[in-house]
Amino acid sequence: MASSSTCSSSLYQALLSRSSPNHGLVKTRPDHVVLTAFKLRPCPSRAVTIRKQSGSRPATVRAAAVGTLESADTTLVERSVNTIRFLAVDAVEKANSGHPGLPMGCAPLGHILFDEVMRFNPKNPYWFNRDRFVLSAGHGCMLQYALLHLAGYDSVQEADLKSFRQWGSRTPGHPENFETPGIEVTTGPLGQGIANAVGLALAEKHLAARFNKPDNEIVDHYTYAILGDGCQMEGIGNEACSLAGHWGLGKLIAFYDDNHISIDGNTEIAFTECVEKRFEGLGWHVIWVKNGNTGYDDIRAAIKEAKSVKDKPTLIKLTTTIGYGSPNKAGTHSVHGSALGSKEVDATRKNLGWPYEPFHVPEDVRKHWSHHIPDGAALEAEWNAKFEEYEKKYKGEAAELRCIINGELPAGWEKALPTYTPDSPANATRNLSQQCLNALAKVLPGFLGGSADLASSNLTLMKMFGDFRKDTPEERNVRFGVREHGMGAISNGIALHSPGLIPYCATFFVFTDYMRGAIRLSAVSGAGVIFVMTHDSIGLGEDGPTHQPIEHLSSFRAMPNILMLRPADGNETAGAYRVAVLNRKRPSILALSRQKLPNLPGTSMEGVEKGGYIISDDSVGNKPDIILIGTGSELEIAAKAGDELRKAGKTVRVVSLVSWELFDQQPDAYKESVLPAAASARVSVEAGSTFGWGKIVGDKGKAIGIDRFGSSAPAGRIYKEFGITVEAVVEAAKALC
Amino acid sequence: MASSSTCSSSLYQALLSRSSPNHGLVKTRPDHVVLTAFKLRPCPSRAVTIRKQSGSRPATVRAAAVGTLESADTTLVERSVNTIRFLAVDAVEKANSGHPGLPMGCAPLGHILFDEVMRFNPKNPYWFNRDRFVLSAGHGCMLQYALLHLAGYDSVQEADLKSFRQWGSRTPGHPENFETPGIEVTTGPLGQGIANAVGLALAEKHLAARFNKPDNEIVDHYTYAILGDGCQMEGIGNEACSLAGHWGLGKLIAFYDDNHISIDGNTEIAFTECVEKRFEGLGWHVIWVKNGNTGYDDIRAAIKEAKSVKDKPTLIKLTTTIGYGSPNKAGTHSVHGSALGSKEVDATRKNLGWPYEPFHVPEDVRKHWSHHIPDGAALEAEWNAKFEEYEKKYKGEAAELRCIINGELPAGWEKALPTYTPDSPANATRNLSQQCLNALAKVLPGFLGGSADLASSNLTLMKMFGDFRKDTPEERNVRFGVREHGMGAISNGIALHSPGLIPYCATFFVFTDYMRGAIRLSAVSGAGVIFVMTHDSIGLGEDGPTHQPIEHLSSFRAMPNILMLRPADGNETAGAYRVAVLNRKRPSILALSRQKLPNLPGTSMEGVEKGGYIISDDSVGNKPDIILIGTGSELEIAAKAGDELRKAGKTVRVVSLVSWELFDQQPDAYKESVLPAAASARVSVEAGSTFGWGKIVGDKGKAIGIDRFGSSAPAGRIYKEFGITVEAVVEAAKALC
Repeated sequence: MASSSTCSSSLYQALLSRSSPNHGLVKTRPDHVVLTAFKLRPCPSRAVTIRKQSGSRPATVRAAAVGTLESADTTLVERSVNTIRFLAVDAVEKANSGHPGLPMGCAPLGHILFDEVMRFNPKNPYWFNRDRFVLSAGHGCMLQYALLHLAGYDSVQEADLKSFRQWGSRTPGHPENFETPGIEVTTGPLGQGIANAVGLALAEKHLAARFNKPDNEIVDHYTYAILGDGCQMEGIGNEACSLAGHWGLGKLIAFYDDNHISIDGNTEIAFTECVEKRFEGLGWHVIWVKNGNTGYDDIRAAIKEAKSVKDKPTLIKLTTTIGYGSPNKAGTHSVHGSALGSKEVDATRKNLGWPYEPFHVPEDVRKHWSHHIPDGAALEAEWNAKFEEYEKKYKGEAAELRCIINGELPAGWEKALPTYTPDSPANATRNLSQQCLNALAKVLPGFLGGSADLASSNLTLMKMFGDFRKDTPEERNVRFGVREHGMGAISNGIALHSPGLIPYCATFFVFTDYMRGAIRLSAVSGAGVIFVMTHDSIGLGEDGPTHQPIEHLSSFRAMPNILMLRPADGNETAGAYRVAVLNRKRPSILALSRQKLPNLPGTSMEGVEKGGYIISDDSVGNKPDIILIGTGSELEIAAKAGDELRKAGKTVRVVSLVSWELFDQQPDAYKESVLPAAASARVSVEAGSTFGWGKIVGDKGKAIGIDRFGSSAPAGRIYKEFGITVEAVVEAAKALC
Repeated sequence: MASSSTCSSSLYQALLSRSSPNHGLVKTRPDHVVLTAFKLRPCPSRAVTIRKQSGSRPATVRAAAVGTLESADTTLVERSVNTIRFLAVDAVEKANSGHPGLPMGCAPLGHILFDEVMRFNPKNPYWFNRDRFVLSAGHGCMLQYALLHLAGYDSVQEADLKSFRQWGSRTPGHPENFETPGIEVTTGPLGQGIANAVGLALAEKHLAARFNKPDNEIVDHYTYAILGDGCQMEGIGNEACSLAGHWGLGKLIAFYDDNHISIDGNTEIAFTECVEKRFEGLGWHVIWVKNGNTGYDDIRAAIKEAKSVKDKPTLIKLTTTIGYGSPNKAGTHSVHGSALGSKEVDATRKNLGWPYEPFHVPEDVRKHWSHHIPDGAALEAEWNAKFEEYEKKYKGEAAELRCIINGELPAGWEKALPTYTPDSPANATRNLSQQCLNALAKVLPGFLGGSADLASSNLTLMKMFGDFRKDTPEERNVRFGVREHGMGAISNGIALHSPGLIPYCATFFVFTDYMRGAIRLSAVSGAGVIFVMTHDSIGLGEDGPTHQPIEHLSSFRAMPNILMLRPADGNETAGAYRVAVLNRKRPSILALSRQKLPNLPGTSMEGVEKGGYIISDDSVGNKPDIILIGTGSELEIAAKAGDELRKAGKTVRVVSLVSWELFDQQPDAYKESVLPAAASARVSVEAGSTFGWGKIVGDKGKAIGIDRFGSSAPAGRIYKEFGITVEAVVEAAKALC
């Protein structure tokens, strides 16, 4: 395993290792000969070697298990590994859908990680101090389901394996944390998982720094991840790994499943960079295990070495054969994402000497894995005792940590939020947001976050804290750099680490375009991240169309399970934060203004909770002549237009529609009380796309908005030129009533 | 400049170079002392040295200019550089908005590039064979405007500089290709520009390989780009640069403005990776110029060396001082994005010995730059003569190249598109798309593209061509790897290289989330990219909610200047391609099914052009009892429901709303003929969010869709469970009429 080779020989050596004698009876296949036709690239990186260092993990009740790192029963291990392989093969075959290749190739790693290395309690998948595992290459989820099954998790029974990818099953086509206890985060879209893992490792490092005491390391776990070639190619992976290196996340250990195959064929057609060198540049410790197929001891030694490096995350490049064991498909892209087919399944059974019927777990294998249930219970019990000790000595810290672990919000936290009156000075909602953030920082122990290099524009610094950095991980201001996508996914990881961690992250609203993949996964996976999005319209002015959001409000209103909030002033901003903090399984996006806005009469935190509400009304009997509807910075325009129209003798209702999703979930009677069906004269005004407003203003109403890209000029001028004005609203209203 | 230093000393040495004697009288500032407090990181990369190699660019009429690489008049150069600096300073000051820091730091590089190195014709910014320049750090656009002004471009006159960032000006807050001739691509959102530059360089390499002859290198230009720290942090930059290395784009030369400052302060707070090492890993040639402030000859030598490396792109890391010359703000983030303020402007004028009034270009500087107008004209004339020669000898190739240069579509190209009848076999629209792509490949000389490692699922391979690769750049199938964001932005670069290049790029529809930043810039900048997005709904089945688009159709319908097309069958797919090819300044997204769909009676290419049209109708006098509206795979459901309802005695109109944008731009009379105001009984069906459908179905209508995330199960089951069925449409219709 130790080597001084270079990238240029990696493919060649990988092929050698594939065709070298092993217990798996994999034949050297014609494909391999074809592969050598690819040009090999020079990559003068230094040798990545595994020195025989001893791990220095603190002793635990798993000492026996850890001992197997040196002396596992190879036959039993191979039988366990083949059990994992065939559970994956059989489930994919039964579903006639799925990805057998990765589980077959990574089964040895999976076995070692789950059976020998990781600390968890199968009967309590949410035990706080468990090691976290993320399958960033989420398509290989049958690997994870097989491991959860063997380890004794209730969420993956034999029946679940047999209903892989079927309606209502707990074993969906990609890992989903909300379907399957034991799955930490939802993966599948490539690169997200490794970024989530960075977030999980950040959370551990932060909490350990805050709460651990010399006599009691109450927070202490590793984060493991498996990346495929796709995760390596995705930019989000590089963003997150650059931060992991910067932060020195020593307890993050990532395995790169280097199988040379992606969907379109050999990775040589699109991916010839030297990954080791890139990761060294990113500040990681890098180890290459050349024989990931059968090199059990090499894998064990690499993990030991990784644990011994405490100031850097480690990438273990593991060269494997995709679909290992399949005599006619291993090492080809045909085994990536399709069932093997019954003939090839039979051939694979023969090849690997596996006489059992589908889904069979041999008794010796099951017996061996059965130790995880008592071991896991003991681990948790030991930790509980440790926490009791901790609580006795460090009462205040224990109370905070308990909040973070349980997700309970401290009593009365909401009182910290500022309140405003119409006499309060005009202010930008980004500034009001800063007031809220700083107020919450004082009362929410799990509140932390930051910006993608726009802290001074987004106004997201918590003034009472310093920066979370390599040497100051106890601090809570996170500096993400210009890495929006990584920021979003890292925040998802933080949120899913512990129920009481409440991460926020910030950039300009338009740059949600860079992080939409991560924001959608917040919504899918129920991660209650708070997305603080400032500069939310043409109101940002001179930076121009590339920086001015237009379609963004609409695009998020269309997204399920997310709250799009656009507060208009101080009380609405505070209300938006209240909603965001309370919604722990539904992320919130706060769209905030760059420009100053007045505090309007009639706005309220309570109104925000209902999503839409009346801020002023002089009509009688729920029959206004006209209803004016605005959001955010344009609520002021609606209010002023209302004043004008009232002067002209109309009865006017002005409605703030701060969150469509919240309004939509109100009882019909409430909705009718705000927007009565009979009142069809409605004008909306919002400095964004009118798309979607048709349903609000109705067939006879008028939506004033912007259905073109913005422009570079002072904000006031753009508002005027684009017709987002009091005059336009008054004119439209008069045409309707 | 030559050096064997390592990253660990970069900051220190950069500081040294900043404080070393120079002509700019920049003082060593207290900030610098603070900077040294940052921890320096080890980075054992090999030395990046500049060897004194001579450039080997073919001789041209610019020999004189190129000669200045060795022997420019330093005093004049410095005056030119200061002219650039103060044009930027003055314009930002007048606008009281903008980014003076980068132009002040990069002015030396800007001068050398535009005055000494690049080949262009100021009076014809669209001359085909010009060198391309991309300011990826687009906020520094005053650098580019100043250079265009000095070089004699009509688009940036003194008056334009004075109206920087004002309404209607040609000098917006970030570079916009559609506002300012001479600007190649629209930048500002970080990382996009370097990816565009990769696309421009790809286009050059491809066209050169296809059209150049041993006796006539008719395609021959360089692509230059300036990146900031932000571009380096963004994942899209890594994606694109990984591909540039993979493709061996030797004529791409990128400058990394290493100024150690980002918006939130010193880059050490979030960005400590070793960029050189990462780029070496990506397969680039890397050079470090340590004194970017005054090291003119070092910059010149680095460019020479870069040109001599023909099989790799080159990154020239240029250590500069942001805001160079400002005695109190240089080297700090306060100079990044705000006007200096009149006091500091005065101080800077004193510091740099610049006695002139704002916007003044000294006569000697103007006179010096004036050579670009005759030189540029001569360059173009020389090339035109070369093209005439080419045309004589290589008639067929010349005709193709002319099409690519002019953007003319070959006569009758549309006839190549396939047509279908209801008897044609049912087929997935992704498959029908493949038929269209392959038909177009034969008739459109500028058609090229590929997929983000999903060619076998997106079905996007052109069978008559091989892969565009380092050694086969004449081919047209581009393998982007799993890099959606980079793919989109590279495609934008290809589209904006020449009007007749028609790039397409593909992934699963849901992964538009990964590339939305680039797609939006296609729309903003008028790049007619064709986005081929398959697996467009829950119809993809087992892969589950992370892979099933829900809100995506709505989210793009809300985006300005883009065509969202969702064809239902063969004729509509062909029609969608026809629309997409014809729209060269408006990108198109084609949402295509994984599952088979029948060819429906009544669909047509002509219908698609109108965006919405009737596919069947048995009503009289434009008064159907019910209108059923569907798109894509659900048009079949609408048609079947129509049949059911007719059996039940209703008159039914079935409408395909394949592109809302196209329908929206039809005359009112046409729209009324399809969706008459009086016909309020309307039911829509689409396997996506109902957001936005309210306006189409009206207050009394019903939108059937999916307002939750999807599920992992066979597609048919999900359709049934989610109520996207004929029965649901019939039931809803019966409730309305």
